[in-house]
Amino acid sequence: MLVNPKSLANIKYLSSKDLSLMDGVIKKRLAKKEQLVQEITYHIIGSGGKRLRPILTILSAKLFGYEGSRHINLAAAVEFIHTATLLHDDVVDHSDLRRGKPTANHRWDNKSSILVGDFLFSQAFLLMSEDNDLKILQILSKAASVIAEGEVKQLSSIENLDLTMSDYLDIISAKTAELFAASCMVGSAVAKTDDEMQLSMFNFGLNLGIAFQIIDDVLDYMASSLALGKAIGDDFKEGKVTLPIIIVYGLSDASEKKFWQRVICVNEQNEDDFKQALKIMDKYAVRKKCLEIADDYVSKAKNCINNAPENKIKQSLLDILDFSISRSF
Amino acid sequence: MLVNPKSLANIKYLSSKDLSLMDGVIKKRLAKKEQLVQEITYHIIGSGGKRLRPILTILSAKLFGYEGSRHINLAAAVEFIHTATLLHDDVVDHSDLRRGKPTANHRWDNKSSILVGDFLFSQAFLLMSEDNDLKILQILSKAASVIAEGEVKQLSSIENLDLTMSDYLDIISAKTAELFAASCMVGSAVAKTDDEMQLSMFNFGLNLGIAFQIIDDVLDYMASSLALGKAIGDDFKEGKVTLPIIIVYGLSDASEKKFWQRVICVNEQNEDDFKQALKIMDKYAVRKKCLEIADDYVSKAKNCINNAPENKIKQSLLDILDFSISRSF
Repeated sequence: MLVNPKSLANIKYLSSKDLSLMDGVIKKRLAKKEQLVQEITYHIIGSGGKRLRPILTILSAKLFGYEGSRHINLAAAVEFIHTATLLHDDVVDHSDLRRGKPTANHRWDNKSSILVGDFLFSQAFLLMSEDNDLKILQILSKAASVIAEGEVKQLSSIENLDLTMSDYLDIISAKTAELFAASCMVGSAVAKTDDEMQLSMFNFGLNLGIAFQIIDDVLDYMASSLALGKAIGDDFKEGKVTLPIIIVYGLSDASEKKFWQRVICVNEQNEDDFKQALKIMDKYAVRKKCLEIADDYVSKAKNCINNAPENKIKQSLLDILDFSISRSF
Repeated sequence: MLVNPKSLANIKYLSSKDLSLMDGVIKKRLAKKEQLVQEITYHIIGSGGKRLRPILTILSAKLFGYEGSRHINLAAAVEFIHTATLLHDDVVDHSDLRRGKPTANHRWDNKSSILVGDFLFSQAFLLMSEDNDLKILQILSKAASVIAEGEVKQLSSIENLDLTMSDYLDIISAKTAELFAASCMVGSAVAKTDDEMQLSMFNFGLNLGIAFQIIDDVLDYMASSLALGKAIGDDFKEGKVTLPIIIVYGLSDASEKKFWQRVICVNEQNEDDFKQALKIMDKYAVRKKCLEIADDYVSKAKNCINNAPENKIKQSLLDILDFSISRSF
């Protein structure tokens, strides 16, 4: 997993003008709102997130030659939904650090994060309803609903070594990949592609999102905290069962299984346990195995856009796939 | 303020069939969802809430002779939005008791309340988007956005004796009255009344909602905990400045002002302070003054439906006004 700091900049290049316009929309929607809403939103949106979801909406519209401006507002809606879920996630996970900065719940408090999240969520729907297209509203309402259900499902993954690969894929499909999928579908819907192509774009985003989340879960064990911008080992500390744990637990011998049961199920952890966890994962080549699974989803995603027009936008979407799997943050 | 336990039952009578149908919609939307989602939602929805907001949607449609079924799904959407805000409110306020039962955050935990709230909120938008009417979506998205902003604004009312009557009215208009207003407007919009009548119905709900919240804030000082179904004195304990405090503080002498500054601004409270607070409020007839203000909004609400058809549904809406101001819970 090599670091290529240029790749994200390259990906952003083709959508940078539209991202700036989106920032204008976000700024306008927040103007005259409570100071706390502005502070918290800018704190999180302005902290150098990857912005992959709005980029996907923008590129998925431009891929099919769309030249209007609806995708700008819809990219802002997607970014609002994503930001709202981040705010609530950080409260639920008790996170202190995101993108190298203190989380909003840490810098302000839980209640501000909850309420500003609600505000951003409702602003997303206001933006969408002003866009006047029921199909778009249905795509994104469904996404919001699936995400929320995925977050609830994820609660069952805490301290639960019975979680299967299939449960895990259900959870990450819902909590992460669905919004990637909806972001792509919305872009192609704005460009008035046919239903089949919209479904292909949905599936492109879904497979991309699954690969992206698998890498995210691997990075939580194996990234440098500096590059990742958040603390590593958070999932471990919390006893959250993700792909690395599912794989390593399946391969572990009896005494190792006892170790996992203590640190994950009982969530009783000593100072050296994280190191020990990494050591066992290394023994069974868990990182490699996770990357192979992620690679598989990347291939599936590539196949989904086989029939899309061949142009530089398509290349950019393929670059996003590569970035998602080779990233170090 | 006499208790009339029959009045709410009387009000519900005309909408009871539609409320049952709404329950069917809610049940169907929750079927096959995570068990936690079902448990928490039924815990809160099934705990004997007043259901005034969905009743308002139902009656506001029937008032104008609507005979279709769209208002059922929209009433469910309104109830979902309301339930989501209750779940998040209870986390923000650290409440332990609602409707005579432990709050969800108390019985389960904060994270479950946050995530199930998000789920219900997104389900509301899914229901609305399936209703296929952009005007309805705009009314309720705007309401959701105003509510969230009102909740954020309300944070500034904590321990803040500089809060003015105008600030207070802004906050309760947003956090409570807007959804009453939107509930009524949606009902009349479904019945295809003209824009002027829809606006009148909005204003009816808005004034009703303001009166309702004023009484709520009075009851938090002066109700019996048993009838109210939640702990009294919560606002006082939290240092939340509401109408009774704004009025009593304006009338207090220098030594009483010092008392309010200690218990509210510094939020340093002894065992007998709540009793003392009630004593000072009694001295300045605060309850009577609050009721007069609430009465004023009830009169405004009545005027808003002057031009609505004269029928038993209208009488039921007038009964809701009376109930809102004479209620003991």
